[in-house]
Amino acid sequence: MKSCGVVVEYNPLHNGHVYHLEKTRELSGAEVVIAVMSGNFLQRGEPAIVDKWARTQMALAAGADLVIELPVSFSAQPADYFAKGSVCLLHALGCDAICFGSESGDSKDYQQMAHFLNQNEAMIDQRFKENKNSGQTYATQMAQTLEELTPHQTFSLSTPNNILGLAYARENLRHKNPMELYTTTRVGSDYHNEELMEQNFSSATAIRKKLVGNQLNNAALEELRLSMPDSSFKLVTSKPLVSWENYWSYLKYQIEVQSLEELRTIYQVTEGIEYRLKEYVHEAESFEQFISLVKNKRVSWVKLQRLCVYILLQLKKDEMVEEIKKPRAIHLLGFSPSGRNYLKEKKKEFTLPLITNVTKKNKSLWTTDIKAGKIYQMGQMGLIKEQDYYRQPVK
Amino acid sequence: MKSCGVVVEYNPLHNGHVYHLEKTRELSGAEVVIAVMSGNFLQRGEPAIVDKWARTQMALAAGADLVIELPVSFSAQPADYFAKGSVCLLHALGCDAICFGSESGDSKDYQQMAHFLNQNEAMIDQRFKENKNSGQTYATQMAQTLEELTPHQTFSLSTPNNILGLAYARENLRHKNPMELYTTTRVGSDYHNEELMEQNFSSATAIRKKLVGNQLNNAALEELRLSMPDSSFKLVTSKPLVSWENYWSYLKYQIEVQSLEELRTIYQVTEGIEYRLKEYVHEAESFEQFISLVKNKRVSWVKLQRLCVYILLQLKKDEMVEEIKKPRAIHLLGFSPSGRNYLKEKKKEFTLPLITNVTKKNKSLWTTDIKAGKIYQMGQMGLIKEQDYYRQPVK
Repeated sequence: MKSCGVVVEYNPLHNGHVYHLEKTRELSGAEVVIAVMSGNFLQRGEPAIVDKWARTQMALAAGADLVIELPVSFSAQPADYFAKGSVCLLHALGCDAICFGSESGDSKDYQQMAHFLNQNEAMIDQRFKENKNSGQTYATQMAQTLEELTPHQTFSLSTPNNILGLAYARENLRHKNPMELYTTTRVGSDYHNEELMEQNFSSATAIRKKLVGNQLNNAALEELRLSMPDSSFKLVTSKPLVSWENYWSYLKYQIEVQSLEELRTIYQVTEGIEYRLKEYVHEAESFEQFISLVKNKRVSWVKLQRLCVYILLQLKKDEMVEEIKKPRAIHLLGFSPSGRNYLKEKKKEFTLPLITNVTKKNKSLWTTDIKAGKIYQMGQMGLIKEQDYYRQPVK
Repeated sequence: MKSCGVVVEYNPLHNGHVYHLEKTRELSGAEVVIAVMSGNFLQRGEPAIVDKWARTQMALAAGADLVIELPVSFSAQPADYFAKGSVCLLHALGCDAICFGSESGDSKDYQQMAHFLNQNEAMIDQRFKENKNSGQTYATQMAQTLEELTPHQTFSLSTPNNILGLAYARENLRHKNPMELYTTTRVGSDYHNEELMEQNFSSATAIRKKLVGNQLNNAALEELRLSMPDSSFKLVTSKPLVSWENYWSYLKYQIEVQSLEELRTIYQVTEGIEYRLKEYVHEAESFEQFISLVKNKRVSWVKLQRLCVYILLQLKKDEMVEEIKKPRAIHLLGFSPSGRNYLKEKKKEFTLPLITNVTKKNKSLWTTDIKAGKIYQMGQMGLIKEQDYYRQPVK
């Protein structure tokens, strides 16, 4: 049974994602598509608009065969750790291939570039340090350094999907038996396009903007309906939705109550950012306002959002050092009939323990994510269901 | 200028308190009455229904001349530390006398009993340990031990005001020049009486019950108006009111997000209570329900409420050990013209620094209370004003 992995967030799942799943199956010839999906806190440092169980339903309805949770220690991370966690899970599952969306470049480009970068890590770090400029973000500086070092390179190293794709390719090469690489071109919409577009390939960002904070009138609902499969539409219009603003009061409380010293124990609280957090949290009246106040040239919006996830979930430096070595388990969120067959056939070869439901027995493998789930629930107290304990995978 | 101190909470100030202030002046013959008042978190482990500034206004209107804040490290405490902090502040202010309400007994009884207890501390501790019975609360056991040791004693050692009065008397005797003691008998209402009574001496507990959680109809408003001075009535009907339920989501979040190990760093989290907190917090839907679930024979409702204050404010064991040695400063919340004269005359003899308003310069003396004020504000976000920085004393 050939399998191909995809790394996804489905926040929420829309027509572009359906296209990606179809292309994945077509290009790889896989019988089983394995989606490694961020849990409730996502790569851009945001809570998912609907919980991981609703998004698993969307994934299965759109053609995924297995949905596996990417732990929060890897999901709310820049490309490198995000890729490390997800590629590591695909390898643990014995996956044959990986297919990712790309703004430009085909799989060979990624393969070559990844090889070059992995071989020359020390030299690149050195050059990066020489170029260091405190007026720019890490991502921008790194892209500049790489472009300098690879002048003949044709594909952009600064677009989000290419950065992620390259991170998958690099991580993949670090494993003994690397998976095959496939790329699909993204259709219809830039990653950050916030205008819902006529061709029904709206970006997830644009869709979220419509859903959160706005009163949905009939026309807007109709646009949404056209931009995503029926199953997604039903779920986003029936489930409790959250955004960062739902967690703002907890975050504010936590930053107010912790001392500078306590804040410094939190993952990624470095370079004095704790002073800015403390300085602005008292006056800020919303999450958005808070981030605008704290943001400066040296730290990007997304990096700050991730930092806020770490503070909200109280992820400590010393714990995270351990957590990000590799995922502790394969948490199964859902499966199709083919997915079930794959599990039966391959389970014994999995190189990480499989959790089909979180219980008192196996909870020690899932501590951080259980905590993340409990905090996520608090975004709509009483409305969001239990996230881990005794939840059965979606069939 | 003879001065007499009272230790108060005014949550809210009612007719019984006015009587106590009048009696204090009459019995002691003092020209200046100094009220040491709990800040925003009170002895029973609760947030004050209105903030310390509104309660200072009530106090001045009812006849107090100086209002001094009892820091949270002493205010949200059992009788011994509550008395330690407040008596220490009165001494630092050069106060001549102290007058407190009592269910029974006059000042001589307190003086004698306090003397006996202070002289025999080691023996009492020994006897207490021998009697130790895990099925009862600390307070009940201590009262029993003392009654055993003083069989001829006529006044009760288990009523809240007598316990407090005795604690003041004992603490007072530990200072070099003890203050004179006066007692007033409480009128019209038991401490815990929750029925608003016809004779217009309702207890603060009964008044709070009316104010929080219930829709006030005209008849209830009229009853309230009759049970307290006009100034108090105006303030409680115009200011944002809070109860524990306003802080429940923060408390729940904090207990969910902290590990058992982290909870154990909090003051008074001992004897495995952290397991019960973690066990019940997830299912509890309100503060009241939470305490009911956690409560058992060994730990009283009030002790649990205090513990929740320590968790909410993240008061750590190691910090509290320092904090409860003695108050760091005299924080002036308000003064009358006589109070101002007293300050002018006596300021130089004060044995602790006087803070008339909290600024960046003196904030290090007031760190824990500044934090408590910021968290208190979050009970009605945007409605409760700044609690410490640049607030001027009420005149």
